[in-house]
Amino acid sequence: MATALASQDGAVQRRGMAKAITLLESTRDDHRAQADALLTEILPRTGQSLRLGISGVPGVGKSTFIEALGLFLIQHGHRVAVLAVDPSSSVSGGSILGDKTRMEQLSMHSQAYIRPSPSSGNLGGVAEKTREAMLVCEAAGYDVVIVETVGVGQSETAVAGMTDMYVLLQLPNAGDDLQAIKKGVMELADLVVINKADLDAHAATRALADISANLRLHAHHGAGDPHDQATYWQAQVMQLSALKGDGLDRFWAAVTRFKTLQTGNGHWADKRRHQASAWMWERIQAGLKQQFANHPAVREALAPTTEQVLQGSLPASTAARRLLSLFAHFSGDKNA
Amino acid sequence: MATALASQDGAVQRRGMAKAITLLESTRDDHRAQADALLTEILPRTGQSLRLGISGVPGVGKSTFIEALGLFLIQHGHRVAVLAVDPSSSVSGGSILGDKTRMEQLSMHSQAYIRPSPSSGNLGGVAEKTREAMLVCEAAGYDVVIVETVGVGQSETAVAGMTDMYVLLQLPNAGDDLQAIKKGVMELADLVVINKADLDAHAATRALADISANLRLHAHHGAGDPHDQATYWQAQVMQLSALKGDGLDRFWAAVTRFKTLQTGNGHWADKRRHQASAWMWERIQAGLKQQFANHPAVREALAPTTEQVLQGSLPASTAARRLLSLFAHFSGDKNA
Repeated sequence: MATALASQDGAVQRRGMAKAITLLESTRDDHRAQADALLTEILPRTGQSLRLGISGVPGVGKSTFIEALGLFLIQHGHRVAVLAVDPSSSVSGGSILGDKTRMEQLSMHSQAYIRPSPSSGNLGGVAEKTREAMLVCEAAGYDVVIVETVGVGQSETAVAGMTDMYVLLQLPNAGDDLQAIKKGVMELADLVVINKADLDAHAATRALADISANLRLHAHHGAGDPHDQATYWQAQVMQLSALKGDGLDRFWAAVTRFKTLQTGNGHWADKRRHQASAWMWERIQAGLKQQFANHPAVREALAPTTEQVLQGSLPASTAARRLLSLFAHFSGDKNA
Repeated sequence: MATALASQDGAVQRRGMAKAITLLESTRDDHRAQADALLTEILPRTGQSLRLGISGVPGVGKSTFIEALGLFLIQHGHRVAVLAVDPSSSVSGGSILGDKTRMEQLSMHSQAYIRPSPSSGNLGGVAEKTREAMLVCEAAGYDVVIVETVGVGQSETAVAGMTDMYVLLQLPNAGDDLQAIKKGVMELADLVVINKADLDAHAATRALADISANLRLHAHHGAGDPHDQATYWQAQVMQLSALKGDGLDRFWAAVTRFKTLQTGNGHWADKRRHQASAWMWERIQAGLKQQFANHPAVREALAPTTEQVLQGSLPASTAARRLLSLFAHFSGDKNA
C-alpha cells in the first residue's frame, strides 16, 4: 500500500490513498495493527507539506475559497489535498465535504485530492483520523494540505493543533466578527480573511479595523522579537473575494511570508514537535479514560458513585480515589 | 476531629481545623485514608457557605481588600475563612498568605480563619487541598469562604471552578485591564472590581467603560433569560477603594444580588453539581496519568518513545497505542 502511495500513475496512487485512509479509519483490531505498520513505514516521507487550517461559520464561503485557492495553487505547480474535521458528521450522517459537487472543478482535478470528514463519533477520534490521513497525503507527495472545519465544539482548536498555520474566514459584518471573538477563535488565528469583501466595502473596512485591533490584543504566535518585523509574525487581517478570485495572490504571499518567518525563527519546527507530543498525550489520556471506563469494577461502581457525588453525600476527591483504587486493584497494581 | 470542628469553644475549634487541614494535606497513605473518612463524615455539614473567589495581579491590593471585606462581613454577623491557591508557593517556598501580618486585624479576629496556600507541587494538587480545606471551614460554621489567588498558570481557572462567584480585582489603568483580557481571565469574572479607584478618578472611569464593554462581549454566566434583569446575571464592573473602606457595602450588595438571582434561576445548584463532577473527573484523570507513568513497563518505554515521536520517526498515535498496550498488558487487561 505504501508503494501505491508513491506511484507515478495518478489512478494507482489515488486508489492507494483511498485504501490507506479507509484502513486508518477502521476500528477493527487487525486493521489497526496494519494501519500502525503503514504509518510507521510512510513516516519518513511525511512532514514536507504546508499544513493549512481553515475555518469559518457556514455561509462565509469556505468551499468557494478553498476551491479558488486550490486551483490557484495547482496553477502555480502545487498539489493540493483537502481534508476536513467535522465532529457533527457522525450525528447528521452527512459531512461538510461529503458532497463533492461543492468543489466541482477542484475535485475533478488530477493534482487535487479531496476527502470528506471521518465520522468516528467524537472530536478526538475525528481529529486523529484526519491527522493520519494528512500523513497519507504527504506520503503521496501533496505539498499543500488544507484542513477545513466548520467550528463545532472545539473543532477549531483541534484543527489549529494539527496545522502549521490557522486561517479564519470572516464575513464583512460585525456580528459575525464578535462571534469569533466571543468564542476565542480569533486568538487562534495566524491570519484572518474577510471574504466577500466586495459585497459591502464599508462594512469590510470597519471589520478590518475591528479585527486588526483585536488581533493586536490577543494573538501572539511563536518565536522571534515582537519588535522586529523581520523575525516576528504578528497575526494579521486581509480582505479578499474568493468568488471573483480577487486577492488570492496576496493571500498566498502572506502564507509564504509566514512560513519563511516561522522557519527562520525556529517556531515552525518547534510547533510541529509540540503538536506531535501533545497529540501523543491526548491519545494516551483518551485511551486511559477508556480503559478506566471499561474496567469491570469501575464500570459497576461509576454510576452510583457519580450519583453520590452529585447529591453531595460523597466528596469528589474521595470518590475519585475510590474509583482509582478499584482500577489499580483490578489491574494488579496495588501501589498505585 | 469532626467533633472538634463543631465545638463552641473557639480555641478548640481552631485547633481542630488546623489539625484536620494538616491531615488533608498529608501525602502519607494512612493519613489519606483518615482524611477520606473525615471528609465523608463532615460532608453533610458542608456546602452552606458562600464561596467567593478573588484574584488580581500583585499590587492590586488583594490583601487590603480581603481584610477590609472580612472585617466588614464580621461586623454584619458573618464568620469569614480565607484560603489561597498559589501553585508557585511550592517553588518559592513562600506563600501568598504565609505572611499573616498581611492581614493583621483580620487574622487576629475570633470570627476569622486564615490559612496559607498548600504547597503540594502542582496546580491540581494545590487546588485539591484548598477545596478540601474549604469543606473543613464550612463544617466549622464559616459562612463566607474567600479563596484568593495571585494568577499563576491557570490558577484563576482553578479558583473559578471551586467557588460560587469569581471576582477579579483590577487597577485603574488600561495596561492592567488589557493583561486580564489577554489572558482570558476577564471572561471568568462574575464581577470586576476596580480597586484604588480614588488614586486616579479619570483612569478609573475609562477603565470602567472599557471593562464594561468587554464584559458585555464575553461574560455569560448561567441560567435565566438574558433579557430579563430579574432572573439573569450580567457580569458587571464597579469602582471601590478598599483602603478607604469605600464601596464595600455596594460590593456586598452585588454579591448578595448575584446569589439571589442564581439561586432563583437554578444556576447556583447546577454550578455546584457541575463543579463536583468536574472535580471528580479531574482527579481521576490526574490519578490515571500517575498510575500510567508509574507502571514499570511504561516508565521504561516512555522516554525513548517520546524521543522517537519528537524526532519524527514514530507516529504520535502509534506511540500512544504502543504505550497504552504496555499499560493494559501489565495490568492484565488484554482487551483494553
